Amino acid sequence: MGWSPLYKADRLARALGLDTLYLKDDGQNPTSSLKDRASALAVVKAREAGADTIACSSTGNAASSLAGNAAAAGLSTYIFVPSRAPRGKVAQLRIFGATVISVEGSYEDTFELSRAAIDRWGWYNRNAAINPYLSEGKKTVTLEILEQLGWQAPDYIALSVGDGCTIAGAWKGLKDLYAAGFIDRLPRLISVQAEGCCPLNRAVQTGRPWAPMEENTLADSIAVGVPRNPDKALRAIRESDGVAVNVSDGEILEAMRLLGRTQGVFGEPAGRPAPPG
Amino acid sequence: MGWSPLYKADRLARALGLDTLYLKDDGQNPTSSLKDRASALAVVKAREAGADTIACSSTGNAASSLAGNAAAAGLSTYIFVPSRAPRGKVAQLRIFGATVISVEGSYEDTFELSRAAIDRWGWYNRNAAINPYLSEGKKTVTLEILEQLGWQAPDYIALSVGDGCTIAGAWKGLKDLYAAGFIDRLPRLISVQAEGCCPLNRAVQTGRPWAPMEENTLADSIAVGVPRNPDKALRAIRESDGVAVNVSDGEILEAMRLLGRTQGVFGEPAGRPAPPG
Repeated sequence: MGWSPLYKADRLARALGLDTLYLKDDGQNPTSSLKDRASALAVVKAREAGADTIACSSTGNAASSLAGNAAAAGLSTYIFVPSRAPRGKVAQLRIFGATVISVEGSYEDTFELSRAAIDRWGWYNRNAAINPYLSEGKKTVTLEILEQLGWQAPDYIALSVGDGCTIAGAWKGLKDLYAAGFIDRLPRLISVQAEGCCPLNRAVQTGRPWAPMEENTLADSIAVGVPRNPDKALRAIRESDGVAVNVSDGEILEAMRLLGRTQGVFGEPAGRPAPPG
Repeated sequence: MGWSPLYKADRLARALGLDTLYLKDDGQNPTSSLKDRASALAVVKAREAGADTIACSSTGNAASSLAGNAAAAGLSTYIFVPSRAPRGKVAQLRIFGATVISVEGSYEDTFELSRAAIDRWGWYNRNAAINPYLSEGKKTVTLEILEQLGWQAPDYIALSVGDGCTIAGAWKGLKDLYAAGFIDRLPRLISVQAEGCCPLNRAVQTGRPWAPMEENTLADSIAVGVPRNPDKALRAIRESDGVAVNVSDGEILEAMRLLGRTQGVFGEPAGRPAPPG
């Protein structure tokens, strides 16, 4: 869990005309996504609360993450996913013993059904937009990045954005470090959304309140037409004097190829090795 | 690369009636398999040899691993896979910029075509059964396991077996540790093959020379009817007073569920944190 590698991506930086670029590979977490940072905390807090069942809605990664973490702790899980969720992710849920509710509808429909079921049955709620502990888990990604960089803040940190919980958590981590004197300036955030589903970026770009959008992109994990943490996410982007970047599906596919061809799987690992424990 | 987690799997151990069980999760390597241990060395040795192109045949994981590691080093790759290789693995190869040759035939046909092409074109050969450096990479998995266990040798170490290179490399690591005095006894190896393709285990079980088998199992990565490292593998199993266990596809599927339900993604990590560097 955590302390995932931060690679110095020199060949990709050259291809993009950048001086210095690092890649944080949070795919190296146990269920292969950043969501494990929040799920680990959710499981601990659920056990503290005496719960034996924990639930969430998810486009896929948070679901896998919760199911894996809960299985490790012997908790039951109810997971609500939109029916568009990739089959491989649903298979992973079932392997972890989760009860999977596949919802014929948008992520919004899925989220609302999970909310109603959680209220009705009294399950512990892992939805990151609702449960305030989870951003404390998510923020560990920026704590680590800065530790791996020797507390030298980068100019920018780019994150993909769906519900907005991750970018909000990442910003909380940066502000905590700044307040505690570990870093002497705050990076600007780059909020990346898919062109086909960018309600938060559209709000940043137009200066108007956010409004729902269709979920029309192959980037299924961030295809969130009605983001559940819009206020915290928009505040994070704006407070950081951040930048909103929309990418087309074609650009996403091209970026995968560029990343694979220039970097492969390695770069030069940055920072010192994992601390004890 | 390497220093993957070793989990103390208490809940799974209880379910299986074992006192103590550890799981080494080499899926946490950069391309998600143990093959990265060999590929990293292959890329270094290819560069030492002044090669700009490197090639291998593979049922999938070694291919992904080589392609990712070679891309990181700026080397070109030619990868020969049987046409049964999962589509996701082939997509990964293409993302890494590999030239993929999909062979309509068995793994043996695939291997022979790669051998002929490598001879003809003078590429650097990553086939682990041919290239003697690669077992030096593979053996690091047992060096790590023993270090993570505080140099207390377990009674048994179980490995899945295809070509035989991994179990042979693992055994070399154990013998090196024993010869150097790091451990005071050698574990027994458990060679696990799929019932539908178990030429090496059949040789152990019958005491007769190995003979080719069909490749009839869903365990595609170890479905090797004509293993390329039979002598080293059989010597490792026999020298260790090892055990050969064949598992049916149904048992494999049931074991995935049992593992997922009892352990989720975590156990108690064993041993001390990663060494510096």
